This record gives sequence, C-alpha cells and structure tokens, in this order.
Amino acid sequence: MALSMRCNVKSVFRFVHKSNSHRRLFKAGKATGTTSLPKAQVFSGIQPTGVLHLGNYLGALESWVALQDKYSTVMYSIVDLHSITQPQDPQILRENILDMAASLLACGIDPTRSILFQQSQVSEHAELSWILGCLTSMPRLRHLPQWKMKSKQKNEGSVGLYTYPVLQAADILLYKSTHVPVGEDQIQHLELAQDLARIFNNQYGEFFPEPRALLSGTRKVKSLRDPSSKMSKSDPQKLATVFLTDTPDDIVLKIRRAVTDFTSEVTYEPESRPGVSNLVSMHAAVSGQSLEEVVRLAEGMDTGQYKNVVAEAIVQKLQPIRLEIQRLRADRGHLESLLAKGAEKAHSLAAPVMTEVRKLVGFY
Amino acid sequence: MALSMRCNVKSVFRFVHKSNSHRRLFKAGKATGTTSLPKAQVFSGIQPTGVLHLGNYLGALESWVALQDKYSTVMYSIVDLHSITQPQDPQILRENILDMAASLLACGIDPTRSILFQQSQVSEHAELSWILGCLTSMPRLRHLPQWKMKSKQKNEGSVGLYTYPVLQAADILLYKSTHVPVGEDQIQHLELAQDLARIFNNQYGEFFPEPRALLSGTRKVKSLRDPSSKMSKSDPQKLATVFLTDTPDDIVLKIRRAVTDFTSEVTYEPESRPGVSNLVSMHAAVSGQSLEEVVRLAEGMDTGQYKNVVAEAIVQKLQPIRLEIQRLRADRGHLESLLAKGAEKAHSLAAPVMTEVRKLVGFY
Repeated sequence: MALSMRCNVKSVFRFVHKSNSHRRLFKAGKATGTTSLPKAQVFSGIQPTGVLHLGNYLGALESWVALQDKYSTVMYSIVDLHSITQPQDPQILRENILDMAASLLACGIDPTRSILFQQSQVSEHAELSWILGCLTSMPRLRHLPQWKMKSKQKNEGSVGLYTYPVLQAADILLYKSTHVPVGEDQIQHLELAQDLARIFNNQYGEFFPEPRALLSGTRKVKSLRDPSSKMSKSDPQKLATVFLTDTPDDIVLKIRRAVTDFTSEVTYEPESRPGVSNLVSMHAAVSGQSLEEVVRLAEGMDTGQYKNVVAEAIVQKLQPIRLEIQRLRADRGHLESLLAKGAEKAHSLAAPVMTEVRKLVGFY
Repeated sequence: MALSMRCNVKSVFRFVHKSNSHRRLFKAGKATGTTSLPKAQVFSGIQPTGVLHLGNYLGALESWVALQDKYSTVMYSIVDLHSITQPQDPQILRENILDMAASLLACGIDPTRSILFQQSQVSEHAELSWILGCLTSMPRLRHLPQWKMKSKQKNEGSVGLYTYPVLQAADILLYKSTHVPVGEDQIQHLELAQDLARIFNNQYGEFFPEPRALLSGTRKVKSLRDPSSKMSKSDPQKLATVFLTDTPDDIVLKIRRAVTDFTSEVTYEPESRPGVSNLVSMHAAVSGQSLEEVVRLAEGMDTGQYKNVVAEAIVQKLQPIRLEIQRLRADRGHLESLLAKGAEKAHSLAAPVMTEVRKLVGFY
C-alpha cells in the first residue's frame, strides 16, 4: 500500500503552507518505507481534535496502521501539549484526547505493536524542548509559514504557538527517531528537527540521528459539498464530511446529497468531474480496489445508483470502526489504562536519552 | 537584619534594567520579610556561575541565609536550565553547578532548613513553563528589558533567551511560592509571574497565589579598583574583586591596593569619597557593626593602617567559608547526594501542583 501521511486533522505538523515543499522534498526525503530498517524508529503525532473523518482515515491513519508491519518501533503520540497553543476548553480537551485514543485504536493502531501515548504524560518532551529552544535562533522560527499564517490572524499569538515547532523537534528527537511520517506540507517543520539534530551534534558530539521524512503519494478526500476543497472537520456544511462515528443512515444521506454534475455516467476525471471522481476515489480506497476496477463495476449505472453502491462500501468499511469506537469510549478506564501503559513505554525510551542529553549539556 | 536580595551573579532575575522599578515597586511589593507568615513559601534561584564574591555574599547570600529563620519553607534553586540560554562549556558548567552548591552551603544555606536543588533535576519546571508559554503573548516578552538589552548584543538571541522569563515564572509558581527575594532590578520579571498567575487563575479557576517581592534596602559592594562601579565576577582587573575562595594573602593584597583618595582620614562619605567609604561599608558588614562604630574605631588611623584592619576583618569572615568550600568541593559525591535529596524534596512539592495543573488544563 502506498504510504499516505497527509492528515487533515491538526496533526503535529499542521499549519504549514505548501510553499517550497517540492524543492525541499529531496533534501528531507530519500523516503523509504517499504523495507524494514535496522534500528528504525518511527514517530508521529496527532493533535486531539476529537472524532476523525474519512479524509483523515484514508489520508493518514490507514498508513499509520500499515507502518506497524514495516518497522520494529512505531510511536504515535496524542500531542496535547501542542493542542493548548490554541485556546481549549479543558472538559472538551479531555474528551477529545480519549476520543482520539479510541479512534486510533479502532482504526487499527495496535498497542501491542506500536507505542500509543499522550504527550503530556512524558515529561521529557517539555524538558528537551527547553534545551533545543536554547539552540534555536528567534528568526529561524519567525520564517516558518505556520507562524506567518497564524500570527496575522491572532494578533501575534502566544509564545507557545511561536515555539511549537521546537517542541515538535523535541518530540521526534527524544526517541532518536529515524523516520517521521509527514505530508508534503509538513516538510519545513521536519527540517527544523533535522537542523536541531545537527546543531546539537555539532555542539555536543554526535548523538541524534537526523530524522528522515516518510513521504509518499497522498490520497486526498474532497468535501462532499464542494469537491474543489478537501474534506474537513470544521466544514460549516454538515453534509460535507463523513465522520468515523456516522451511522449508516448518516453516511447514506451524505453520499446521496454529494455534489456531482449533470452527466449521469460514472467516470474518473478529477479535473473536469471532481464530484463523481471523489466518489470513485473514496470507493476504490474503502473497498481496496483500483480506480479502474470500480469504474468498470459502475458501468451502466447512473450517478444516483452509483451513490448507493459507494455509500454501502463506505458503511461496510466504517461500521466496524464506529462500533469499536463506541465500545472503547464506553470504558474510559480501559482507555486511560492503555494510555498510561503507552506513556510508561515511551518514558522508558525517553528517560535514557534525556539522561545522556543532560550529561552532554553539562547538567550532570 | 535588613534584607538585601540584590545578587551580582547571574541570579534567576538577572539582565533586567532598572527603568521603572520604583514605580512598580508598590504594585509588586507590599514587601514583608520580618514576620513569619502562615503557609509562606519562599523561592529564589541563582545561576551556576561558579565561585561567588564578597559582593554576592553581602548583597544577597547573607539575606538568603537569614530567611531560613523567618519562613517555614525556603527553596533555593541552582537554575542550570537558565544558564544554557547563553553558550556554556559542558565541563565548566558541571563544575560551576557543584561550586555554586558548595558556596551556598558554605555561606550558611542549611539543607535541613531549606530546599537546595538543581533546577534541571525537577522536570516539572520545563513542563509548567510550556503551559505558561501558551498563556503568554509574544509582545509581552518583547518589551522586557532583558530581551531588549541582550538581543541587540546577540543578533536576536535564542528562543531560550527570549522565553527565559516564562521559565522563571514557572520556577516560582510551580511551588505556589508566596514570596520571592528580588532586587529592585528584578521586579519586571516578577510581574510577569504575577500576571501569569492571574491569567491562569482567570482561565482555569483560582489556583496560584500571586507571588510577592521580598524587597528591601540593598547593600552594594563596589569594585576595589573603581568604586564607582559594583564589584563583579567578570571585572577584567584582577584585584578589583574579592572571591569567597581567596586566600588571606590574596585578600590582604587586594584591600591594600584598593583605590582610595589623597585624604588619609577614614570617613564614610560615599558620594565624595567612594573608595574609603566602600572599605568602611565592607568592614561594617563583615564585622556586624554599624557604619558609625567602624568609623569611630578607625579614628586616628590613616587609610593605609585602616586597610590592614579591613583586610583582617574580611579574612576573619571569609576564612571559614573558604575552608568549608574547599572541604565540600573535595567530596563531589556528597555534594551530588545533597543536590539529589534537595531535588527529591522539590519534586515532592512540585508533583502534586503539576498534577492539579494538568487536570485544570484538561490533560487528565
């Protein structure tokens, strides 16, 4: 399966423009991902934004699940320290953390094969972030597109929003991560982590590996109401987005109402027929078939009939996930205990690294 | 004894201009310090700059020692996380941390009556700093005089240098500190801690007390070579500064060479006769007498004879401290174990506060 790391939720690397990403791809990339590497250490983070949607699932989570078969150590962190760089309601944040844990587990993140944990439960993230901040120049952050974008909207924003990419670098380097699943739009933040690894190594001796991007073609799911924009949690149009927790009836309604065009035939022409092509693309993805296969299957159907087929395929795919999320959410204690165990494992990897870092810096 | 918190070493509050300090004194001040308060919690920090000098001792450390008799919980932190906001040689930093611990202990900081610890050994400092950074606006820090001063010199400086006052606020609030020994030049940084306590309380409910300044007249020791400037560790003139580790011969030489004037009589006139007045002031301080008493004692002496008396008094005061520093420095293991015990105590106070903070923020 092609790796597809673009995540439409607030992933750890969200907020980044796409400018220059292609130029930088080669520098950061050398993307591997099909062969198991010795001592490979995969890390990625996702902000606790609550319930995921189909775009998140097909765009990123399926790939995260697949990485568990390809790498020996795979870590996924629910990055709550990042989430508070924007104002949060504490009650909702707490629920969103547990919802995210349930969603990740339901999608196939397996706590026996990967380390799933909550960032704030491992104190070393903030500690390493402070040290790396002392090696980061102020202008280095000012030029990152995330800050440029957000600071205009938010009257300069908080210190946390400004220094957030340093915490990201700490998240990655803390585990001496070698591979980081990222979308193209996240490359500039990974480059900061690479720079900080180099700066630290120059100053204190070779210590951190330079983390590489795990990057490949991204599968982009479009809004059902406006196929020119991507599917998004915050879409004001309620029928635009399929959530993993939608009932079969919700899904059927949303797909039936999906914007297509006046041609009744089913074809895959994303430029000229984005609406129906989005349906074909989702159908292929959820059913594990190629685009050609699903188009052939739809021969003789009009788009109205085809929508029923697509809705059914999506229901088939999401129904077990929805039920598993429900099951997991019903047992808060179990989720909390899973996260606590994950944090313990993460801490057991982070602690010796931080002990070494403290020695190198001169604290011990 | 008058409290005298101005510290010429890089204390946790160093780098602050004196502008506006008087205006702000009343707001921050309401300085108490002579009566023992219920649940009073005193916190201060000092950067590990190595060996202290007489100006540090008389200007701050004697007062720190005295606070141990006045408050139930007194914490002194060697703030190594702050020290790396400037480039440090790891080997030297490590020695400086132990030298600072030895100096504080030799001066009378008593680990059975106060909590002496190394900041980087208590992970909660960095954790709370991250959270407070998310409540601090970028312009709030840009206007602090420390940044204005340092960033010009250092081509904008590091993120650590910029966000350093937020870590200071975390140092203080982490222990719900109620009283912070500060010099007048440190008031603006304490005000940030007060602001952040208010902002946190507004957002998450009443939690942090607003820390007050423990502020009083400061005793300022001047350079022996240029009595118009203060005694400083980094004075390029070797004879300008009396270190706590100076031998009696060193001290006698430095005092004999102290710049005075062409009048042989001993008087205390700091404006018109700064050199001899500095000697009188030091003499009074180390011998525990008033200025009048030491001037009366010097009647009939010329400044040359008087210098011998002053040198002798300083030797008397510093000799036991010097020997104690030597003794403590000879047993690195003992120092490290004392710091580890201090960190354990500090952690036992910090941990429940951070658990509450995490709950309030919505992480648990």
